Amino acid sequence: MSDTPSADAPGRFSYDGLDRILHEKARLGVLVSLAARARGLLFGELKELCSLTDGNLSRHLDVLAEASLITIHKGYEGRRPQTRITLTAEGKRRFLDYLAELERVVHDARACADEDADAEPGWAAG
Amino acid sequence: MSDTPSADAPGRFSYDGLDRILHEKARLGVLVSLAARARGLLFGELKELCSLTDGNLSRHLDVLAEASLITIHKGYEGRRPQTRITLTAEGKRRFLDYLAELERVVHDARACADEDADAEPGWAAG
Repeated sequence: MSDTPSADAPGRFSYDGLDRILHEKARLGVLVSLAARARGLLFGELKELCSLTDGNLSRHLDVLAEASLITIHKGYEGRRPQTRITLTAEGKRRFLDYLAELERVVHDARACADEDADAEPGWAAG
Repeated sequence: MSDTPSADAPGRFSYDGLDRILHEKARLGVLVSLAARARGLLFGELKELCSLTDGNLSRHLDVLAEASLITIHKGYEGRRPQTRITLTAEGKRRFLDYLAELERVVHDARACADEDADAEPGWAAG
């Protein structure tokens, strides 16, 4: 496939790079939250940043850990149990790949939205 | 909420504007495909552009039509039945809203990815 496939090439809008594990809205928020934080975030911080319930966040973290995108560290701060979540190297790599595909979607969509809707070469009926 | 919420504001990464109806990968491809085409696309054209099976495309089109984002026109080209799909005005509006949120995700993620991971003010343990 060339770098600039024509607008009507088969599969032009299939966006195979939008990996469903990363594309899901809540998990996407978790990944963006973690992306720049080498030391990771605590469970409670993530929960607040992403506006998720305990149960929902746990479920999504399990999916991400199962896919080796994050690591869940269970430890203690003094006597209090503490859960810290960090992005793995694999997670960072796959997040950047996903991000590149997302930028392609935005670019395609903006190109379409800005186009004159009357100027439609090649889309004859039938 | 201000236009530039601080990086640790509650809900900062909840991305509520990522409407699940539009965010689903296959439906997103369908919407991008339709966005600049006032006359719409034929079922077969969409199927090819998005690399979907008949059944999958039908199912996703039903979801989008149910949400009033597209119109499905069933007609004839000569004697051959022909299905043409167009974006509604409401669909175009909601797609542009969704796109604005998607751009926010990309912007946040790029800001994170470019940040020096060692410079993390305010994310102390505990």
